[in-house]
Amino acid sequence: MKSATEYLAFNVLTRRGFVNITSQVDKIVQKSGIKEGLCLVNAMHVTASVFINDNENGLHHDYEKWLERLAPHESIDQYEHNKTGEDNADAHLKRQVMGREVVVAITNGRLDF
Amino acid sequence: MKSATEYLAFNVLTRRGFVNITSQVDKIVQKSGIKEGLCLVNAMHVTASVFINDNENGLHHDYEKWLERLAPHESIDQYEHNKTGEDNADAHLKRQVMGREVVVAITNGRLDF
Amino acid sequence: MKSATEYLAFNVLTRRGFVNITSQVDKIVQKSGIKEGLCLVNAMHVTASVFINDNENGLHHDYEKWLERLAPHESIDQYEHNKTGEDNADAHLKRQVMGREVVVAITNGRLDF
Repeated sequence: MKSATEYLAFNVLTRRGFVNITSQVDKIVQKSGIKEGLCLVNAMHVTASVFINDNENGLHHDYEKWLERLAPHESIDQYEHNKTGEDNADAHLKRQVMGREVVVAITNGRLDF
Repeated sequence: MKSATEYLAFNVLTRRGFVNITSQVDKIVQKSGIKEGLCLVNAMHVTASVFINDNENGLHHDYEKWLERLAPHESIDQYEHNKTGEDNADAHLKRQVMGREVVVAITNGRLDF
Repeated sequence: MKSATEYLAFNVLTRRGFVNITSQVDKIVQKSGIKEGLCLVNAMHVTASVFINDNENGLHHDYEKWLERLAPHESIDQYEHNKTGEDNADAHLKRQVMGREVVVAITNGRLDF
């Protein structure tokens, strides 16, 4: 069975940020030469998410606002996890809503959306 | 490695609807002749979800009501995404809760629940 | 293609509980001899979840509280599903937030986090 693994690193300047990695992942799939199979794309950090949706700024704004309503960052001390000295308990919650990973079919050597 | 891909299309008469596709997917798995492996079932539209849960009408009603509470359809203009002329920002949010895809083990040629 | 399947059973003493199964899954991967591939870990019950996050008691407490806020257990009769004689409609909702499954890369014979 053919397989390929690559590790990608991203930096965002704000506490949260959206990065569109579709074309990078698609290039890796093409480079791998895999024609039919499954492509797993997962976050390696427990407060990060990989998800598939529209790459539209308005929608990203809506996600931000919505996630903040579902799992507010403040007050910091409402979360037990933050008693460990961290302040990111809300990010662990938000990540469950947005998901850790996506699995995408590879068909004819390309991501199949 | 053996693989099989099929595309299924569904129409629902209401804004949202639940369609049980388990037996269709199971038939495709059986037809493929794959005995051990992974079956990816994913939505091809970013406001649709594939998930595994009870096929029970009361529960579907509860999901509807709950999703509407977490991410209300109205007011339309509360969402930036809807300024693009669409009115489905809430559906993009609801889809993150319900998920895009499931991956199911194939064991002895059948979906393994 | 090499594959391996194992079924694990867990009992928790409370209505909800967190069980860290990472080392068990990692041992199964090592025993399988699979060097590169995908490891699917999924719940076999529709009110259970498998997810990846910090194994930290404070965070687990935060998840409990948060899930109860998003999908309260009571009142029991607010849910149509509970009219079937069950009282676990909220657990079906909570499971959608936390997810059914994770897919983890196997790299050099180990779970790749």
